[in-house]
Amino acid sequence: MKDLKYFKEIPSTDLPLGALISIIHRVQNININQGIKKLGINASQAGYLLKLLHSTNMTQDELSTQYHIDKGAVARGLCRLEEDEFIIRKRNQTNKRCYQISLTPKGEEVAKEIEKLNNIWEEHICKDLTQEKKEELQENLKMIVLKTIELNEK
Amino acid sequence: MKDLKYFKEIPSTDLPLGALISIIHRVQNININQGIKKLGINASQAGYLLKLLHSTNMTQDELSTQYHIDKGAVARGLCRLEEDEFIIRKRNQTNKRCYQISLTPKGEEVAKEIEKLNNIWEEHICKDLTQEKKEELQENLKMIVLKTIELNEK
Repeated sequence: MKDLKYFKEIPSTDLPLGALISIIHRVQNININQGIKKLGINASQAGYLLKLLHSTNMTQDELSTQYHIDKGAVARGLCRLEEDEFIIRKRNQTNKRCYQISLTPKGEEVAKEIEKLNNIWEEHICKDLTQEKKEELQENLKMIVLKTIELNEK
Repeated sequence: MKDLKYFKEIPSTDLPLGALISIIHRVQNININQGIKKLGINASQAGYLLKLLHSTNMTQDELSTQYHIDKGAVARGLCRLEEDEFIIRKRNQTNKRCYQISLTPKGEEVAKEIEKLNNIWEEHICKDLTQEKKEELQENLKMIVLKTIELNEK
């Protein structure tokens, strides 16, 4: 396939980090979208469900912070998930302006499916990396997240 | 700032590679968008202009392959860039179904601006990495691109 051929031939040092990150993000989304198409949700909604699987009763603001997506976009994405009964939103009793979000049983089932897809991807891309190399990669990518947030705030 | 605090505190091994890539992609886009807002283009159009700066007379298909974006989306993005006189599209003389794309002087100027923004980002995120570590990171990310394309084609 010509895409694979193109990337195989180009020396990795000719690929800027920004371009590499963008391409991974896009091809990974193609992969996730293929798997979730039948569920009627998109890749960012899949991300929210996945986050909620491990952090019950999050607020919309926390989701926005942890995914680094603006609050309006998070609100729109969640609204659709609520309509389709994947999540429920409850007003916080102490802070009425705040919504707490949790998965419905239907949402939990779908979130587990998405997690399975992510695990398949993660295992596949890491199979030639030692545990040490994988951890070094996570550390470097975390460093890039921090430095990019820092640069945005300058 | 609370985003930075959240990412600083979480151990990097708790962050799946997929989540790290998504976050970098989003925060890097925020950064690029801040810089190009005044130019009236979006982050993916900025990507096309940048690619054309170093590869004159590319075809639409080549752009679609190298950016791993579907042909329809590339065609729409380029259409807008042509209207705004950043690029010109010429029919290939030997293959009439094929368009060759090149930058106008206005497009070249903007592409150089975008390149400058990308270089600032790249330098900032790499300043604590040795050349050897940077090259290893590029190699690992290229490996992830290849493995993800491979997985999508299964």
